[in-house]
Amino acid sequence: MTNNEKALELHEKWKGKISTTSKCAVKTREDLAIAYTPGVAEPCNVIASDKEKAYTYTIKSNTVAVVSDGSAVLGLGNIGAHAAMPVMEGKCVLFKEFGGVNAFPICLDTQDTEEIIQTVVNIAPAFGGINLEDISAPRCFEIEERLNELLDIPVFHDDQHGTAIVTLAGIINSLKIVGKAKEDCHIVISGAGSAGIAIAKLLLRYGFIHIILCNSKGILSKQSPNVNEMQKEMLHNNSINKENKNGTLADAMKGADLFIGVSGPDIVTQEMVSSMNQDAILLAMANPIPEIMPDIAKKAGARIVGTGRSDFPNQVNNVIAFPGIFKGALEGRATKITEDMKLAAARAIAELVDEKDLNEDHIIPAVFDPRVADAVAAAVKDYI
Amino acid sequence: MTNNEKALELHEKWKGKISTTSKCAVKTREDLAIAYTPGVAEPCNVIASDKEKAYTYTIKSNTVAVVSDGSAVLGLGNIGAHAAMPVMEGKCVLFKEFGGVNAFPICLDTQDTEEIIQTVVNIAPAFGGINLEDISAPRCFEIEERLNELLDIPVFHDDQHGTAIVTLAGIINSLKIVGKAKEDCHIVISGAGSAGIAIAKLLLRYGFIHIILCNSKGILSKQSPNVNEMQKEMLHNNSINKENKNGTLADAMKGADLFIGVSGPDIVTQEMVSSMNQDAILLAMANPIPEIMPDIAKKAGARIVGTGRSDFPNQVNNVIAFPGIFKGALEGRATKITEDMKLAAARAIAELVDEKDLNEDHIIPAVFDPRVADAVAAAVKDYI
Repeated sequence: MTNNEKALELHEKWKGKISTTSKCAVKTREDLAIAYTPGVAEPCNVIASDKEKAYTYTIKSNTVAVVSDGSAVLGLGNIGAHAAMPVMEGKCVLFKEFGGVNAFPICLDTQDTEEIIQTVVNIAPAFGGINLEDISAPRCFEIEERLNELLDIPVFHDDQHGTAIVTLAGIINSLKIVGKAKEDCHIVISGAGSAGIAIAKLLLRYGFIHIILCNSKGILSKQSPNVNEMQKEMLHNNSINKENKNGTLADAMKGADLFIGVSGPDIVTQEMVSSMNQDAILLAMANPIPEIMPDIAKKAGARIVGTGRSDFPNQVNNVIAFPGIFKGALEGRATKITEDMKLAAARAIAELVDEKDLNEDHIIPAVFDPRVADAVAAAVKDYI
Repeated sequence: MTNNEKALELHEKWKGKISTTSKCAVKTREDLAIAYTPGVAEPCNVIASDKEKAYTYTIKSNTVAVVSDGSAVLGLGNIGAHAAMPVMEGKCVLFKEFGGVNAFPICLDTQDTEEIIQTVVNIAPAFGGINLEDISAPRCFEIEERLNELLDIPVFHDDQHGTAIVTLAGIINSLKIVGKAKEDCHIVISGAGSAGIAIAKLLLRYGFIHIILCNSKGILSKQSPNVNEMQKEMLHNNSINKENKNGTLADAMKGADLFIGVSGPDIVTQEMVSSMNQDAILLAMANPIPEIMPDIAKKAGARIVGTGRSDFPNQVNNVIAFPGIFKGALEGRATKITEDMKLAAARAIAELVDEKDLNEDHIIPAVFDPRVADAVAAAVKDYI
């Protein structure tokens, strides 16, 4: 049986990957009188006079909504709300298994920005946080920003920030190995959608000052046609394409120290890797087929290669970040996930790789490292 | 410790009465590759080309949304979405414990009819059914009707139909005891809100032809001021206040065979009961204090008395209906809960009381009778 057949068979067996479970027994009339009427009226009354008490008496304190409109699901594209459900359920499983956080999938049968915002605001009372997932750019930027303004619970678009945090963690450790300073490090990001832009923003915040963004047409510059609002905003930053270069991805990569791929399969050649600076680092995270396969990149002279895949070393995977991010935010009752929290989370992830274990094939903790979620949660809580 | 204190203490301990649980292990890379990427893409693709397959591969086949806007919660009134959460979580517990149905609370931070409808439509993909709860009349009528038109999953306002089904079940058995035919039975319903109207509708459908509806001002007639649309519609039915009587609740009860209370505490006097026909039946379901206490009603000559309370015989409680209703609807993939299903459910509940066990203090199965949900589910499925 192929893996795909196995996935289909198991999904049919599971009939949904999560279930809701009761935390209280209702075996007797007394049980019922406490968990339901008339006893339940008491916490209702307390919350009615102090909304904050919802965190004391309801699931709000430890429950996240995994919200998607199905417009940009994995590599599958705009497959809609129903078809997005298996992914969102999977995300809910990861929230629970890795972070101990309850999560429920909210797949929206609309792709209208205003309707999405209104719907999420309307359903927010049950939740302590909103994880946005697989919503296409540029709508994802506005939706996240507006929801963060409207709600008093954290709203976090994982495709952007989860990816950015784990990427930065891998970079921090890679630079320790190659011994380069962030100020000297020339970075090329392939992919100028939500993930690429979020990575660029977090890297700027961390202190990198030489970053070039590329899309499928090549380098983004002030002369590029069809640049969207968010990309335009990035190009106003002095550290983004400082010299206003034009050209192809290959042109951008000449002399670069670090390549970050959140784009598509097989778009980086051996020649492009060979043209990079010595001790080149490549995080080629396109899924399931990276921008360049690790063995080819290594043969062409790369020193460190990471991908999104579990079957190669250095797996750069969001699951290292998001369960701990929300665990910390919920435990500390954060109302926002701030830039400082993201940087702290990236540093905390990087620090989990001991100096003695740190090497070209081990720049980032394993997905199943049991220390990760707590370390990330603690880092987040330090900045609440 | 009082029961209220105990309820508060336990709700604080629980921090929410439900949790989300993973149905699949993610302990190894292989697990992750099946439940999440890349394996999860396979069921996504199948659903993308056939939406119906969501029932095969996602939680949709066995998950209900418990939706409230917090506008009419228990006897507490309009306490809002956050304060409604403990009740809706309790309802989710009952769905799971009594019917094996997964349920998640959706408490809406809006009381605007159009926004509620739009929000529920938008979040529907994850769910196989929508249980509306504690939404005030008359908005609840329009919301339910419109959602049933817009969605291809069943939408069921439990305060209306759950109450009506269990009430009818109790009446069917009561009439067996007193030996009266439905055509001869004069019925007074106290309370002309969502529950009262739904009961009247289901009783009409069952074949009762003498029904008078009362509100707090007295009998509803063609001369009554401030009659809402739904009440007006009821008054057009020939079997509702056939003689166009006017007067007080006391006037209505003179000579009546059956009193149904979904109104308020202590509004029925001994004298009113004494004025009823012989073998009078009273289902006084106001919570927590019924329209008349059973001992007083009995003393005044009533033959059968039921209440909503667990500490008296004949507890008329929705939990006897809704878990089985949705269990059957989900298992049979019903797209609506029809009137025929409601009648069948009421008959099935009534039939669970064996002839030999049937008596004045046992007109309805106990809340914890383990046969109830399956019997109701089977009855519902017979009409899909």
